Amino acid sequence: MGNADYECPHRVAIPPAKPFFKSLQSGLKETFFPDDPFRPLKNQPASTKLILGLQYFVPFLEWAPRYTFEFFKADLIAGITIASLAVPQGISYASLAKLPPIIGLYSSFVPPLVYAMMGSSRDLAVGPVAVASLLIFCMLGKEVNPNENPKLYVQLALTATFFAGLLQAAFGILRLGFIVDFLSHATIVGFMGGAATIVCLQQLKGILGLVHFTHGTDLASVMRSVFSQIHQWRWETGVLGCSFLFFLTLIRYFSKRKQSLFWINAMAPLMSVILGSILVYFTHAEKHGVLVIGHLKEGLNPLSISELAFGSPYLRTAIKTGVITGVIGLAEGVAVGRTFAMFKNYQIDGNKEMIAFGMMNIAGSCTSCYLTAGPFSRSAVNFNAGCKTAVSNIVMATAVMITLLFLTPLFHYTPLVVLSSIIISAMLGLIDYEAAIHLWGVDKLDFLVCISAYIGVVFGSVEIGLVIAVTISLLRVLLYVARPKTIVLGNIPNSMIYRSTDQYPIASNVPGVLILQIGAPIYFSNANYLRERILRWINEEEDKLKSSGESSLHYVILDMTAVGSIDTSGISMFEEIKKSVDARGLKLLLANPGSEVIKKLEKSKFIDNMGPQWIFLTVGEAVTACNFMLHTCKSNPVVIDRFSAQDANV
Amino acid sequence: MGNADYECPHRVAIPPAKPFFKSLQSGLKETFFPDDPFRPLKNQPASTKLILGLQYFVPFLEWAPRYTFEFFKADLIAGITIASLAVPQGISYASLAKLPPIIGLYSSFVPPLVYAMMGSSRDLAVGPVAVASLLIFCMLGKEVNPNENPKLYVQLALTATFFAGLLQAAFGILRLGFIVDFLSHATIVGFMGGAATIVCLQQLKGILGLVHFTHGTDLASVMRSVFSQIHQWRWETGVLGCSFLFFLTLIRYFSKRKQSLFWINAMAPLMSVILGSILVYFTHAEKHGVLVIGHLKEGLNPLSISELAFGSPYLRTAIKTGVITGVIGLAEGVAVGRTFAMFKNYQIDGNKEMIAFGMMNIAGSCTSCYLTAGPFSRSAVNFNAGCKTAVSNIVMATAVMITLLFLTPLFHYTPLVVLSSIIISAMLGLIDYEAAIHLWGVDKLDFLVCISAYIGVVFGSVEIGLVIAVTISLLRVLLYVARPKTIVLGNIPNSMIYRSTDQYPIASNVPGVLILQIGAPIYFSNANYLRERILRWINEEEDKLKSSGESSLHYVILDMTAVGSIDTSGISMFEEIKKSVDARGLKLLLANPGSEVIKKLEKSKFIDNMGPQWIFLTVGEAVTACNFMLHTCKSNPVVIDRFSAQDANV
Repeated sequence: MGNADYECPHRVAIPPAKPFFKSLQSGLKETFFPDDPFRPLKNQPASTKLILGLQYFVPFLEWAPRYTFEFFKADLIAGITIASLAVPQGISYASLAKLPPIIGLYSSFVPPLVYAMMGSSRDLAVGPVAVASLLIFCMLGKEVNPNENPKLYVQLALTATFFAGLLQAAFGILRLGFIVDFLSHATIVGFMGGAATIVCLQQLKGILGLVHFTHGTDLASVMRSVFSQIHQWRWETGVLGCSFLFFLTLIRYFSKRKQSLFWINAMAPLMSVILGSILVYFTHAEKHGVLVIGHLKEGLNPLSISELAFGSPYLRTAIKTGVITGVIGLAEGVAVGRTFAMFKNYQIDGNKEMIAFGMMNIAGSCTSCYLTAGPFSRSAVNFNAGCKTAVSNIVMATAVMITLLFLTPLFHYTPLVVLSSIIISAMLGLIDYEAAIHLWGVDKLDFLVCISAYIGVVFGSVEIGLVIAVTISLLRVLLYVARPKTIVLGNIPNSMIYRSTDQYPIASNVPGVLILQIGAPIYFSNANYLRERILRWINEEEDKLKSSGESSLHYVILDMTAVGSIDTSGISMFEEIKKSVDARGLKLLLANPGSEVIKKLEKSKFIDNMGPQWIFLTVGEAVTACNFMLHTCKSNPVVIDRFSAQDANV
Repeated sequence: MGNADYECPHRVAIPPAKPFFKSLQSGLKETFFPDDPFRPLKNQPASTKLILGLQYFVPFLEWAPRYTFEFFKADLIAGITIASLAVPQGISYASLAKLPPIIGLYSSFVPPLVYAMMGSSRDLAVGPVAVASLLIFCMLGKEVNPNENPKLYVQLALTATFFAGLLQAAFGILRLGFIVDFLSHATIVGFMGGAATIVCLQQLKGILGLVHFTHGTDLASVMRSVFSQIHQWRWETGVLGCSFLFFLTLIRYFSKRKQSLFWINAMAPLMSVILGSILVYFTHAEKHGVLVIGHLKEGLNPLSISELAFGSPYLRTAIKTGVITGVIGLAEGVAVGRTFAMFKNYQIDGNKEMIAFGMMNIAGSCTSCYLTAGPFSRSAVNFNAGCKTAVSNIVMATAVMITLLFLTPLFHYTPLVVLSSIIISAMLGLIDYEAAIHLWGVDKLDFLVCISAYIGVVFGSVEIGLVIAVTISLLRVLLYVARPKTIVLGNIPNSMIYRSTDQYPIASNVPGVLILQIGAPIYFSNANYLRERILRWINEEEDKLKSSGESSLHYVILDMTAVGSIDTSGISMFEEIKKSVDARGLKLLLANPGSEVIKKLEKSKFIDNMGPQWIFLTVGEAVTACNFMLHTCKSNPVVIDRFSAQDANV
């Protein structure tokens, strides 16, 4: 400070400027490699680097050498359990996407094998997902009627799967995984709940045995379609559907109560399929209007590279469908993987997961599989069955393979209504009303996002819901950025601590000093707002002091602790505030500017402009300096001039 | 704390929950009324409220009663000065938009009168702006050729002006002014520089006396157009244009050196027009290929309400043009107003300005005026000429009115090439290369935004440049939000202060304790990143301690000072971090959570889950508690158990 009258105990350090390319490098690293994936590669010989690099992209190579027979026993049991779920779910979800049921089975064979090699989750069970299936129908069905032109429809679905995989892999390779983070938890809860609701509504077709049904997915169209055909309702399917639904719901209810019963819950869909098929076979219900699956082709996945319709006039639609379903699948899959990784305390690499998802969908699209991800229901069963590694996926794929080779004829008499019951039962678990209630209790805005997404999906369409949810989420981010908090600080009695006077009513104002904490980094998007808000704080404080007749305002301290960074608009804001504060005869002080902020303020000459002696390490030291000047000033007005005169000498 | 062994000096206050509607109300107020415009209305009788309300929307009523003759003298001089600039600029900019020159004069008559009533800036001079003029031609000219179908083209320009005004007024009334803030300073510098460059390039047509010219605005098209017609170049116009440009640039250069010469600079365009006209008149240059303005209709603005083409098939284009030019005009105008308000230390209300801009453009579109805003050049002249209030705009309008009524025939022989020189001279001042150099020095990312906008405009098109600039700015905001800083804190010797070890090399680590400061509010967009980054810090710290053989890690303190708010995703992140930290046998402590954060953590039961005794007012107190437990633990391991046992009792 160089001032004999007042010695500031600490100085704010200005870190030396880093060379441009070094700071660019570290900035890019923090942005795109926050998890530092290459850390183990450091200081290793080239051969080890190669092995570690291979292991990075194919995690199977990493854990396979350590794989034990104990692990295999656990994975075998888990794999068979999820296979019993995968077969009926595969058929059901494929029919939800209006694809041939066999494609649902194909999709539970190749993608799990790819994921087992490349995925980093130990608990994720791979397969088709309900919401993406419905989305495929919604988006492709608008352009091509799956009943009138089934071949083209399948081709477009495969093409969409290919582009979904391409996008997912690109996200992972370009390390753009953070894009998925912009789908907030609240958005996903609302969107999934809405999608589950309309998936259930679609099942009314199967439950009521209707032949004609609306192509719309919104509540109004479905209700109109259902109630305009009251005379076509079939009591046979209705009774069958309701009893299976009751059976499945009952089992789910008990398995939730008692953890050890989860086996029965996992096996229930397969049991329903077997029971339903036997029932139809012996009662010949298929001749009384109960629709059945019919003939399923035997044999493994045929190659489908030549089916990818890159030259089709509907390519745009296929790409759009791929992009949207790919992102949705990714968001759900990564979230599911993270949830279970947390339970077992291991890390999942989001970008690696994306590459794995992408590769499995690209491989899938070439082998007659449609879009797959990590469905929550199947993964939960896998986890509960005690899986140890992704080998459970290999076991499941093998079981599905055996089914494809030898058991498809057994599904000939499976009634569609049972599949509807299975879908409804799975979907009811996705309507997470408890999470919505929790959101209402904790954060009203998050609840609004959630409920808007839900309403958009149920009353509009899946796309409308998605657009609304993403828009609100983005607007929220922009609003967050545009409207940071400014807080008045006061002194906690008998300490050097300064805290929000709102939060700590005991914190007392310092006479003649206004202390403001700026609550966020200062960027172009909030610089104008902050300038207005800070000046309003000063106005209000001056008015308050005037009306109460207390001492007038002399100093304004800005606590910069929370200002992590700043851009040129933010610096202009400081220059403007300084001018306004000077014009009122007040003095501006800064407390605790961070490394990046002080560097930029120095580069832009703002520090020289305001005088480095007005920058303090803590609010407490700034207040001490203010008090010193205020009191010395009263007894000896020369001192403050001497202090101010430093401005010229710096 | 309730622990006999360790007494924490301060507790973190949990403010009582506010009723929902009260917090909604205060949230909305902070978001949309940060400047609290209704403050003067509080506790006033109804009649005063009415007057104050009227004065709010028509600021003229506020300052008119205090208007003095002294003010008028100053405003008269300033008004005449800007009128001398307004006439040639109006004609030039209208021809830039390919509109009849007379519309440029009309536009300097009605809108300034409206603005004088409603605007809150004392220095802004209203008139057409170059960039918006060029944009109108770029966007409308693509659909309708102004030479082939001049009537429809003018109608569309008026319609676009109407929608621009509507949008601007709506922004102001809905208090959405913050949308303009998302055009950062860097974006505007780059965009304006690029636009000025292409405006200059367009003037090559006039300077070289070319008759046919490209409709493209990019560098490549213009260069191709210029060099493919080398044989059509006319030396007469070239010499004339270059000499006037030299004259104008010379005067600008000297007026910058010496403030008192600004008069000459302000009058220079008018002098050029007079000189050029006289020259042409006496040399009959118009017969040697020097194009002149020709006949200008006498008389004031005709009404044009019936010209607004709401039923036109090009309405979409007109609306799009209106929206884009409206936002650009607003951004420039508000920025210019703010700049000069800062010099004179008064406040400009952004929302009020938007309403004034909107009303003046709506009124303008009904009286044959095209889009107007607050051009920088004209406002700077107004400011330098010593204007006191918006009356200078009224004086200018009156001068323009006299021109319209009596002086239009004088412009018959004004050569177009002089107008080109005037435009180039004005535009050269808008290419703010010094600001770009400043950006490079202070903030490389801002420089990137700036230069991308420039390159996009010059090599692509105005629209491409705008889209690039806005996209980069938005991406930047999203990246800011997605990648907050985490900083390791250390103890400043001989104090209770904890600061970044990067910034303060003297700050020393506390053995066994990792202190991390989270640098931003925690939202869905950064929760995943922060989780990964914090766990990586812990990993790295453990590795470091292991390799150095020092004491192992026991405590992780998260400093929450900079976490202004949190959403449900952020709370989940804390729950996940707590689980991971627990699984490693470490303890998580929080320091100084703010009001909103602690409220939400409490509502979501996270505090009960982690135990309120692990939350401290300052980092210093948290470290003291850690040291106490570490040392008592060594001598008496029971204490730490007793401390932990409190978790169950909370």
